[in-house]
Amino acid sequence: MPSEFDIINRYFAQTNLIPPASDKTVLLGIGDDCALLQPNSDKALAFSIDTLVEGVHFLVDMDAFLVGYRALMVNISDLAAMGATPAYFTLALTLPWSDEQWLNDFAQGLSAVAQMHSIFLIGGDTTRGPLSITIQVVGQVSPTHALKRSGAKVGDAIYVTGTLGDAAAGLQIIQEEIACDESAANYLANRFYQPSARVNMGQSLVEVANSAIDISDGLLADLAHILKASEVGARVHIDAMPLSSELLSVVDKKTAQQLALTAGDDYELCFTAAPDVEEKLKEVSQKTGVAITRIGEITNDKSLTCVDSDNNEIEFTTLGFRHF
Amino acid sequence: MPSEFDIINRYFAQTNLIPPASDKTVLLGIGDDCALLQPNSDKALAFSIDTLVEGVHFLVDMDAFLVGYRALMVNISDLAAMGATPAYFTLALTLPWSDEQWLNDFAQGLSAVAQMHSIFLIGGDTTRGPLSITIQVVGQVSPTHALKRSGAKVGDAIYVTGTLGDAAAGLQIIQEEIACDESAANYLANRFYQPSARVNMGQSLVEVANSAIDISDGLLADLAHILKASEVGARVHIDAMPLSSELLSVVDKKTAQQLALTAGDDYELCFTAAPDVEEKLKEVSQKTGVAITRIGEITNDKSLTCVDSDNNEIEFTTLGFRHF
Repeated sequence: MPSEFDIINRYFAQTNLIPPASDKTVLLGIGDDCALLQPNSDKALAFSIDTLVEGVHFLVDMDAFLVGYRALMVNISDLAAMGATPAYFTLALTLPWSDEQWLNDFAQGLSAVAQMHSIFLIGGDTTRGPLSITIQVVGQVSPTHALKRSGAKVGDAIYVTGTLGDAAAGLQIIQEEIACDESAANYLANRFYQPSARVNMGQSLVEVANSAIDISDGLLADLAHILKASEVGARVHIDAMPLSSELLSVVDKKTAQQLALTAGDDYELCFTAAPDVEEKLKEVSQKTGVAITRIGEITNDKSLTCVDSDNNEIEFTTLGFRHF
Repeated sequence: MPSEFDIINRYFAQTNLIPPASDKTVLLGIGDDCALLQPNSDKALAFSIDTLVEGVHFLVDMDAFLVGYRALMVNISDLAAMGATPAYFTLALTLPWSDEQWLNDFAQGLSAVAQMHSIFLIGGDTTRGPLSITIQVVGQVSPTHALKRSGAKVGDAIYVTGTLGDAAAGLQIIQEEIACDESAANYLANRFYQPSARVNMGQSLVEVANSAIDISDGLLADLAHILKASEVGARVHIDAMPLSSELLSVVDKKTAQQLALTAGDDYELCFTAAPDVEEKLKEVSQKTGVAITRIGEITNDKSLTCVDSDNNEIEFTTLGFRHF
């Protein structure tokens, strides 16, 4: 059986995952007790760590390429939510077995995302145990303009990127709980398997938005984090939820809205901004090719209220999936 | 059940684990999408990530204080091996249950080590799954003098710190495979439960040693990493192994030597240095209060040989425990 060291070298150091020689900020990469970096000091470093456990965060027997793809992408989504530029990551991989094909496919999945976002693997650890993947990403962002959860102001408009509820429907389709046409099924399943971290969007919002978070647990649950950190409330218009035609082709509108409000895994951004930056947001949307939809406003009553098109309050029994 | 967010806040943010307000390099700690740091840019950043899995790296039902203590200490040991000063860490904790007492004790164990080494928690993730702990440590070190594995030179003397083989004997005592007197048993068990990362030693060696590694898998296995990275060989004198009186009180000398050469978990440093720095090493040993023992020399034949006091070659069937 190859040693830990051999595995990491063979499957990860030989892919396109490692920093190019031209990256002079990486003094030492994989293979020593530590990696050594000397990053650009004008910027702050943004750090985020996340674990994905088989059967909890990804499906048992999920394709290894998709496991790698999704694991790195959802970590990068945290950088996007700060407006940070991805730079480096470390990987701690716990595996019940040493399967060369799995490792190869997993590395390819990581590599596809790493190339897309110019992020490089600087260190790792491989251990034996129940399948789980911990990734720590490091990005760079302006120390004064990073998008925090705590910056929302009363009167801010609330926005989301893209469409919501797709990944949850995709997961149900993957688990064969919904029957539908193949094209919509593929689109929605892919929204679960291969989410898009909104990195360009986050960077473009750095001097525009007052607060931001990525939607991993569900819009209402994640928006609640912004409200708590900013000590404000919000009114959300459920008829404003951006819903994809694919989602509306497989569930009725009410179910789609419910998914958009409470289901996680879309990895879109939710952010707040002063109402007078609408024009700037149109430019950002055009530049990034990602829709931005106004869905509500920040209030001073410290509660989170959902209203329909007649401004009647709507109640929900759940605030979205909580991992713990 | 408290959410992931609540758990992290309650047990980790309220201990002495978080950065003091006086630490101006931490712009944003736990509780947002990312932590934000702006560290001293004269130094390089040293990164290391390690996972500890229950039943693989620590014992099932091990005291939670000791799990936390050991998890952070063995990660800091990687910083020590580079000569780096500990600064920050992130924690990804996977738990099968939400046990307040366990979390409290675990946080206390982390906190004891964090205070000892002035390292602070800047971010974390808590998920449900089989018990495992991934810690990413960040330290700071001179970009030009960090202790790499690749710096060993032919003619260097090989040194180890402290005594070797203790933790392996301690583990056997814990598992009741060795009967012995209580004082020796406590000492050796503690060497397994509460290893000492040789941080001061590593820092003191930065301008003295040519290469270094920490001994986690066994002296011969870890020295082999230095040899491979440096493209050199080594001759190790088994009679020179530093053995504690406690170890020698529970096993015979030959067994003690075998443990010292092949057993892991001591987290002492193995390093190489030009033979003319002996005087400097005596000062370092005196200053740090940790023994330094010369155990061999670097050779140009690219093999790793063990010899007895008559210079006869000794063969070993195992090169120490490999985690994978």
